[in-house]
Amino acid sequence: MASHVIKSSLIEPDGRVLVDLIVPENQRDLKASEAEGMAKVRLTKIDLEWVHVISEGWASPLKGFMREDEYLQSLHFNSLRMKNDGSIVNMSLPIVLAIDDETKEKIGDANEVALVGPDLNTVAILRSIEMYKHNKEERIARTWGTTAPGLPYVEEAITPAGNWLIGGDLEVLSPIKYNDGLDNYRLSPKQLREEFDRRQADAVFAFQLRNPVHNGHALLMNDTRKRLLDLGYKNPILLLHPLGGYTKADDVPLDVRMEQHSKVLEDGVLDPETTIVSIFPSPMHYAGPTEVQWHAKARINAGANFYIVGRDPAGMGHPTEKRDLYDPDHGKKVLSMAPGLEKLNILPFRVAAYDTVAKEMAFFDPARAKDFLFISGTKMRTFARTGESPPNGFMCPGGWDVLVKYYASLQAEEAASAVVSA
Amino acid sequence: MASHVIKSSLIEPDGRVLVDLIVPENQRDLKASEAEGMAKVRLTKIDLEWVHVISEGWASPLKGFMREDEYLQSLHFNSLRMKNDGSIVNMSLPIVLAIDDETKEKIGDANEVALVGPDLNTVAILRSIEMYKHNKEERIARTWGTTAPGLPYVEEAITPAGNWLIGGDLEVLSPIKYNDGLDNYRLSPKQLREEFDRRQADAVFAFQLRNPVHNGHALLMNDTRKRLLDLGYKNPILLLHPLGGYTKADDVPLDVRMEQHSKVLEDGVLDPETTIVSIFPSPMHYAGPTEVQWHAKARINAGANFYIVGRDPAGMGHPTEKRDLYDPDHGKKVLSMAPGLEKLNILPFRVAAYDTVAKEMAFFDPARAKDFLFISGTKMRTFARTGESPPNGFMCPGGWDVLVKYYASLQAEEAASAVVSA
Repeated sequence: MASHVIKSSLIEPDGRVLVDLIVPENQRDLKASEAEGMAKVRLTKIDLEWVHVISEGWASPLKGFMREDEYLQSLHFNSLRMKNDGSIVNMSLPIVLAIDDETKEKIGDANEVALVGPDLNTVAILRSIEMYKHNKEERIARTWGTTAPGLPYVEEAITPAGNWLIGGDLEVLSPIKYNDGLDNYRLSPKQLREEFDRRQADAVFAFQLRNPVHNGHALLMNDTRKRLLDLGYKNPILLLHPLGGYTKADDVPLDVRMEQHSKVLEDGVLDPETTIVSIFPSPMHYAGPTEVQWHAKARINAGANFYIVGRDPAGMGHPTEKRDLYDPDHGKKVLSMAPGLEKLNILPFRVAAYDTVAKEMAFFDPARAKDFLFISGTKMRTFARTGESPPNGFMCPGGWDVLVKYYASLQAEEAASAVVSA
Repeated sequence: MASHVIKSSLIEPDGRVLVDLIVPENQRDLKASEAEGMAKVRLTKIDLEWVHVISEGWASPLKGFMREDEYLQSLHFNSLRMKNDGSIVNMSLPIVLAIDDETKEKIGDANEVALVGPDLNTVAILRSIEMYKHNKEERIARTWGTTAPGLPYVEEAITPAGNWLIGGDLEVLSPIKYNDGLDNYRLSPKQLREEFDRRQADAVFAFQLRNPVHNGHALLMNDTRKRLLDLGYKNPILLLHPLGGYTKADDVPLDVRMEQHSKVLEDGVLDPETTIVSIFPSPMHYAGPTEVQWHAKARINAGANFYIVGRDPAGMGHPTEKRDLYDPDHGKKVLSMAPGLEKLNILPFRVAAYDTVAKEMAFFDPARAKDFLFISGTKMRTFARTGESPPNGFMCPGGWDVLVKYYASLQAEEAASAVVSA
């Protein structure tokens, strides 16, 4: 494969220009005062994360929250057919905004509404709106392949939501910020593309994660780089791209993960020269094969052309049965066949585990299965809680310390709340 | 639109040749004796209906029961991407064959199996087989958009089925026959195309139904013909295509419907010169927007180029809630956007109801809603049971008599079984 420097204009498979829905600075006051006269829709924290996602073009060519024709295509086909040229775009998750009966009543037959953040500031205008029924059961069944109680995103964002969806074109008054000390890590797709250009990347491989990086992850990221060099690329850049939106309560929170990721780079497990760490602002659905398409599609929009996919991406345990919710192989199979993702290079990898003989993380070798130790999130947590160290070589010491501190603080909190409730 | 006589070769949008999986007569004995040595898979009545469907090319280019890659594409994308040319084919229902643990064990690592009918005769060979997990919950959720108990096809064909699916290439030893006096109505896609050619059809419009034909149906079929003539077609032919496979217990059975349809033609409500009545061998899923795609796709394979779609196609009431399972408009919306069906002409129609002023079935006019009477299947059934006549003009007298007799026989049966169980 010939090496060439990626240019933003080359990355978009069909030459489509990324949508950018943030109002230019000189028009903000005008739009803000226009919004004052509109019916208001109050956003939840997760809704605001979606506004962020849409506004920067992660879901491009989507120009706002889905109208019904987009919603139905997403739900039934995991893809949208573009009206202008008939091309197919992957869109596996319904990106929708729910409103309740009362809000719908207030909106009446208005053509646009103002979107108001959780702290009541006006965030955006939604224009040419369309309101349609929010059939939660159908949405859940077709997105997750189950309606079992206990799906984290469902319980957090769908069950309590209204019975209507409102779609329309989004105009965001100013870039979404969280003021949590991590905003500088939240590069937009445009900023990431500029950074890849600046670094003269000729291949960008993205790694989605929502967990601390252990040496098994590092092994496959470094191995991927080697494979790309072998293919003839001169400067493959890794986009280490932790998910920054909603995650379930027992996942490690973003700030702790970011600190852990920093240590991994500081300790030299990953090479800072060829790695960009940035935050992906999407909330997490835990919808397995359906969601992995979204994870890949959004990274293509940000300029990645290689996507690493492992065992059971975006998966979790079944909420009510003792099994994985999804077949661990379905994620990569579905991703490899997904409409609109034909041009993405998918890099499946063998699972890594702790090799008790070599005393390091290594690709699992079924021929000597008994030598390998799988260290699950739960096991890692138990190690950290009990103060026990994981096997040498499982994670760099700096990264591990971050987790030990985090779990210790959790235990302290739990102890405190036990005292309070006693 | 210019008029031209349809030729079979013109109908297939991409020139694909319909699959025909029935073994030539001179090879049957050979194949049958070959099958004797193979592990056996016992088919249910519904499995056999699917063998029938696949063997004649209704699901072409599908060459057998789905392997996992086809199953996953069907489930997630409602379509298949063809490996040879990358073209997209609509395939909204998983067409799969389930086996239990014991059968899987017996098959072991064989490469082919014999399929044995409910009456133990060898029906077919399945070659280059692949066995994979049957995750029933996921299949049901993604196909129906609900996992509520009481879905007819699920209770009949999925819940009692095995935990494995077996895919492969089908070779059917001889055409599937039911010996119920209706086999001559079961024209294959090839036979239908020949019949359209013979009649010099320049447009074929298909009407799927699983209910008796009332004058509202007839109104729209006749109105469709008129619209096609207005468009410049000289000889539009109606394919009146009742579904002949599994239907739920409270639907009118096939033999009664076929008798009723005959009367409708005899009474001149539909013109026999421009109508072909034939049986569609597929079982019914009652899966609304997902299934209507299958209903349309199969008719394209049989040579139809116009498809009539009404309110809530393939829908039913929610099994546990007091509402329609599907939004009544979603069927036609989803159909109009479905991948692989871009070239199908979809004819949506306004709902017909009994106009109490004109005393006939007419297209519903919302401006004088109070003049219209909707006669549901349940209401029709009550009329027939109580011996009450429906409003004059609702259905031709010959057709109505068939239903009255059917419901009377049902009541007699119920009375008899009540006596027995008393």
